[in-house]
Formats: sequence, C-alpha cells, structure tokens
Amino acid sequence: MKNDIDALMQSQNIDALLVIGPAKHNPFMMYFTGGGHISQADLVKKRGETPVLFHTSMERDEAAKTGLPTRNLDDYRLHELLKETNGDIVKALVLRYQKIFTELGLTRGRVALYGQADAGKTYAVFTALQQALPEITFLGQADDALLLEAMATKDSAEVERIRRMGQVTVEVVGLVADYLTSQRVQGDILIQANGQPLTIGEVKRRINLWLAEREAENPEGTIFAIGHDAGVPHSAGQAEDLLRLGQTIVFDIFPCEEGGGYFYDFTRTWCLGYATDEALALYEDVLAVYRQVMSELKPGVQCSEYQRRTCELFEERGHPTIQSDPQTQVGYVHGLGHGVGLHIHERPWFGRQATPRDILAPGSVVTIEPGLYYPQRGLGVRLEDTVWVRPDGSIEILAPYPYDLVLPMKSG
Amino acid sequence: MKNDIDALMQSQNIDALLVIGPAKHNPFMMYFTGGGHISQADLVKKRGETPVLFHTSMERDEAAKTGLPTRNLDDYRLHELLKETNGDIVKALVLRYQKIFTELGLTRGRVALYGQADAGKTYAVFTALQQALPEITFLGQADDALLLEAMATKDSAEVERIRRMGQVTVEVVGLVADYLTSQRVQGDILIQANGQPLTIGEVKRRINLWLAEREAENPEGTIFAIGHDAGVPHSAGQAEDLLRLGQTIVFDIFPCEEGGGYFYDFTRTWCLGYATDEALALYEDVLAVYRQVMSELKPGVQCSEYQRRTCELFEERGHPTIQSDPQTQVGYVHGLGHGVGLHIHERPWFGRQATPRDILAPGSVVTIEPGLYYPQRGLGVRLEDTVWVRPDGSIEILAPYPYDLVLPMKSG
Repeated sequence: MKNDIDALMQSQNIDALLVIGPAKHNPFMMYFTGGGHISQADLVKKRGETPVLFHTSMERDEAAKTGLPTRNLDDYRLHELLKETNGDIVKALVLRYQKIFTELGLTRGRVALYGQADAGKTYAVFTALQQALPEITFLGQADDALLLEAMATKDSAEVERIRRMGQVTVEVVGLVADYLTSQRVQGDILIQANGQPLTIGEVKRRINLWLAEREAENPEGTIFAIGHDAGVPHSAGQAEDLLRLGQTIVFDIFPCEEGGGYFYDFTRTWCLGYATDEALALYEDVLAVYRQVMSELKPGVQCSEYQRRTCELFEERGHPTIQSDPQTQVGYVHGLGHGVGLHIHERPWFGRQATPRDILAPGSVVTIEPGLYYPQRGLGVRLEDTVWVRPDGSIEILAPYPYDLVLPMKSG
Repeated sequence: MKNDIDALMQSQNIDALLVIGPAKHNPFMMYFTGGGHISQADLVKKRGETPVLFHTSMERDEAAKTGLPTRNLDDYRLHELLKETNGDIVKALVLRYQKIFTELGLTRGRVALYGQADAGKTYAVFTALQQALPEITFLGQADDALLLEAMATKDSAEVERIRRMGQVTVEVVGLVADYLTSQRVQGDILIQANGQPLTIGEVKRRINLWLAEREAENPEGTIFAIGHDAGVPHSAGQAEDLLRLGQTIVFDIFPCEEGGGYFYDFTRTWCLGYATDEALALYEDVLAVYRQVMSELKPGVQCSEYQRRTCELFEERGHPTIQSDPQTQVGYVHGLGHGVGLHIHERPWFGRQATPRDILAPGSVVTIEPGLYYPQRGLGVRLEDTVWVRPDGSIEILAPYPYDLVLPMKSG
C-alpha cells in the first residue's frame, strides 16, 4: 500500500524515486498527484520525505491543487541551458536534472525511475544523466519493482474508487443487455428500429456514450467479439460484424476514471436468443471452474498456485491448457487473472510473469477470468470479475452481475 | 511525411527503427499500425523494408488487421527464457530482442528507439540490450529525431482525419455555446432547469458526452477556465466553479480519434452576457495579433520568426512578453503554436524548443494561438485555430468557427 513506500525503499535500499511525465494516463504520477491538468512534470520522492512536484509556470495552479510541495521548472531556465548546449535538448535536460538533484541534496545513492514517457527520449536522457552523475545509480523498473509492489495492495480509498468504476461497468453492461434483447430479429440477425442490421460498431459506440455519461473513460476500447473472434482472447470484434442469434459473444469491458485513474475489469459471455449444446457445454465448464477457483481463494497463497489449479481443473474436463502445452492456442490459453488499479494490468500476476512474490494478500484487487477458446469451432467463453481481498481475508466481488449465458430476446 | 521515412533514415544514417508498446494512445506505433486492440507489441522497420509487427498469440487477429507482415512473440518462448534467467524479466526480454534482431539480420548498425512506454523498464531493458549487442548503437530520440521530422508534415489522408476531428470539435463547441446561452440567469449566475447553479464540472461532463457521441476521445481533458483561472494558461478550471456573466472564459478543447489517433486543437474566449471594457480591450489586442500573424503565415519561414513577430506585436500594444522577460507570468507567456497530429503537441515547434529546422512547409498542420494573461486582474484571453499549409502554400483553417467574445444570453 501507499504507506508502505518508505519501508519498501528502506528494504530495497532505494534513496529516491523519480517519476516523469504527465499526470493523466500515467499511473505512477497519478499515484502521487491524484491527477490534474499537468502535461509535463517531474516528481522526486526522497526516502522518508514528502514528494516534491516540479511543474511548469503555466501549470502552477494545477500543481498546487495536488497539495504536494511544488517547484517551478521554469526557474531552471531551460532556454539558457539550451544556449549553453547549442540547442541540444538532451544535454539541456541533463543539466536541469543535475541542478534539481543538487538542490535536493541528491548527490549519491540509488534512484529508481518511473513514469509513462517517450522511450527514445527516456533512453537518451537517462543514459546521459547516468554518465553525468556517476555517484548516483539509476535503476530501471522491472516487473518486481518497488512502486508496483506498493500498488499491489490497495487502501480503502483506492478500493472505493475501483468499486465505483465497477458500479459504472455493471450499469453499462445492463444497458447493453437491455439494448440487445429489445432489438427486432429477422432470420438470425438483430435489426435496429431504423430497419438496418445492428453492428458491433454501433454497440461499441453506445458503450462509449453510456460510459461518458457516467464520467468514465474507455482508453483501451472494449472487446465485443462474436463467433470465431470470441475464440481469440484479445480479438476486439469487427465493427461491421452483425449480431447473430446463438453465437457466443465475449464482452470484456475495462473502463477507467476520467483522466486515467482507477480501472475496473469485467467479462461476460452471452448467446442471444439461444445457445447451442456445444456453447452451453463450454460455458458450463468455464462457470464450474470459475466457481471452484473463487471458492478456493484466500490470502497468503501464491497466485501461480491458482493458475496451476485452474489448468488442472480444465484438464480434468478434457481441455488443453498452457500447462500441458505452453504453445496451445485452443483450450485455456492465458493467465487466470491480474491485479487491477491505476494500471489495467498490474501485480499480482497469475500467469507466466508470476513470481513467488505474487501472492494474494489483504488489499489485493485482482481479476479472476478463466476462459476456453476454440476459434475453429467459432466458440469462446470467458467469465471475469474483479475481486477484493478484504482486511479480514474474505473475498468480495466489487460489482456483482448475473452470469447468464443466454439473453432471451424480448420479441421472441 | 510518412513516405519520407526511408530517405530520412538514409540521410541520418539509421539502419532500423524499433517501436515499442501498445497500438492505442502510442503515436509512433499508431503511425505504422493505424491502431487496433494491440496491448503489447514491437515493430521493427529496417531501412528500405516494410515494418514487421511482433505481437502476442492472443492478439494475432488484431495484428493481422494492420496489413503489416507479422510475427508471433510467443514463438520466442519467454517462459523458457525466464527459466534461463532465473525469472529476471529484464534479462529475458534482452534475450528475446537478441533473437529477434538476429533473425532480422540486424547484427550491427544504428537503431533508433520509439514508443510510449514505462520509463524504468525502457531504461533497464535498453541499457542491458546495448551491453549485450555492442555492435549495435541504440539511439534515443530527442525532439529533432527522425519520426517526428516525418510526422511534421502530413499527407492528405492524415489531414482529412484531423479535419474530421476539427468538425467534431466545432460541433461540440457550438453545442456548448447553445447550452450556456439557453440557461436562466439569476443575479450574475447561470441556473440550470433543475434550479441548481450550473458548474464547470457539469459543462465538462456534457462536453465529454457530446464528444463520445461523435466517436471522439478526450484523454487530456478540457480547459474551461473562468476569471482568475483563465489568466493561467493551463489551469483547467475548477469543477465546482459557477458560470458568471461578464467574466472571461478560456475554452481550450483538444479531442482525438477513438483509441488515441489524430487530434484537433481549438480555443475560444467567451464572456457570457456582456464583456467589461478591460476584457474587451484585451480580446481586441489578441484578435488583432491573431489576424496579423495569420495573414503573414507562408511556407518556408522558420516558426520561431512568427513567435518573434507575435512578441513584437504584443509589445507594440504595451504587453510584457517572454521575449522582453523570459520569466514573465503576465502578458504573452507561451509559444505561438505547435504541430498537431498523433501527438497533441509535436513538431514544428514555435516556442522555446524551436530550432532552425522547425519551418512551416506544405503539409504542416499547426496551431496558431496567441493569448494574453493577467491572473491578478482575473483576466485571460486566448484564440486558437488549427491550420494546414496546403500543397500550394495557402493557409487553411481546418474547422472555422466564429471569434465572438460575448455570448448573448437568450433569456436577456
């Protein structure tokens, strides 16, 4: 959790964190600032001290709103540094960081780097800065790094924000179900009031609208995939595809707070009107495994254990899994879940990236999302909820919603 | 333009481009792929060759939709590489890049790095990869780098996409004007139909809704700042602030295509009901300078010339500028404009970052946005349009909209 950061810095021997980039859609900066219209900033947190936010003049009021101590980047006179370096922006930025670090008394030690940023510029500036400041060791973040470890468990304020996004999500899912089932059917195709066939593109347009009405953003888009596409886990669905009765639809929705805040992640599989026996059998396998794994979740267990267990349960039911064949593209082909927070995917990991440090703990907020995929048979089923491990160790689905496979058409 | 890339690679002696990260909200990846639900990818473009897209199995169909040659990252068996490296993800990724580079015959030369990505991971992976592949020189991108130079001029297909976002923008601006002027006035405050005072938060909620209806996203938020806040260029406005007659409102809106495509950038300054003499005088100065500078735009001129000229014009009218005082926070305090494309801010630059290579050219799409700011007097004025330098050298505002300062209230 956020209040573990100093202890983590101590145990990992980190003297300072440097977070770069804007506040919006930049999880690590958002974690400290809470957002705001800050398009360009640096944040330095020394161990045991409050983070300091460096901002531009134009954004001084937005920076002040964060409540953090602030300094104005314009006081470091980049235009003069650019003259000194004959217009070399990388060298000028290095000089500016050197000034900042000196002022903060950061002349030696280990500094960990964070933030969403342009990869090329990051590489150029920080390799040059490392050469300019040999007494400091700049540490790149890997998947097991400090802030991701802090973020892997959430405090109650964070959980409430994720829960609110969950409420928005299930409201919108309910609207989508009502919208689909109230369409007219002609042959096996859904027809809109205007006489045109309903397309996936139109369904997605409405999803974005209903999310916007609820002050949510959908930066990663929605998976709404039917038939063969439902059989490929991350196929988002073709805009021009029609809605047909009896085909499996994988509907995976993962909006976030406006400006790039906390996410929610949710999937249901639907068949409109009726399900084939084949789809129903697949669905029943996924639902049974989902329920079994959910019933076994408890704090203190490595997430990879649940992945192993899920593979075992699917194999008992006769499905290939990535445990028996790491390259399989049919059967159960992905990880059981992942942490959800300011990143849509964050620690703890359940799949191939999982390490022994990826453990369910009080404060974990994770998805549980078993699925089965048979693209050649035009079939895919996934069920997903986002769950919170409560302080008492019990498991709570943050935004419950029915699991029904078949959505009966109102027009019969 | 995009078809200049090979020539730029030749002239800058670059053997390959490596673009990392997702397709959405990642301008450099979007430039090559056109988008799609691709959450994790690498793209390698060797000089003179078609780019190759490396994707995961789960996203194979989305990758195929790009029309690029594709390879499956899962064929490189990261899970086995992780075993070899005792679970060290940075080392495993380095091994995977080594395999990829070898397969592509990239064993020596200069490789330029691009993409929005986690700064820490980028720094860790590419410093390690540089050590592992000493025959290759990895180049970080600075502001004058190759792809930004290609992107600084747009082909006609790109201009049409920006123009469409411009049409969406001015439609929504028109809806906002109608919405504001149709409210009831009580004292000097706007009152909604439900009897509650109208807030900036409610105006912004509607802006997001009207944008979503038009399949646009608003990832950076909207500046809708009144009174003192209008006097600070990047103050986004307080959600709880009320709409008062006679105060300057700076309304700066910059949406993009769904999924993080092309942007448009636009600003008007409004006073509801009436303007004070002081606001009107400021507005007339900005409008006069805007019109003068617009009339002088032509291809072949360095953008910094227009910045110099704008400062000169404002100083003639008695305003401080960053030319006379680089630290000023009153008067004219920012650059005249910037390129607009897959980044909301990109080359050519007009302000402090401008180099002699930032030149208006046929295909340039730039904002022109002079402004004056007096926060202590509760005043700010900015006018902004996005313009295209046409192949014949003429200047076209991509989405025209009236410049009126005063929005008369319908209820009188």
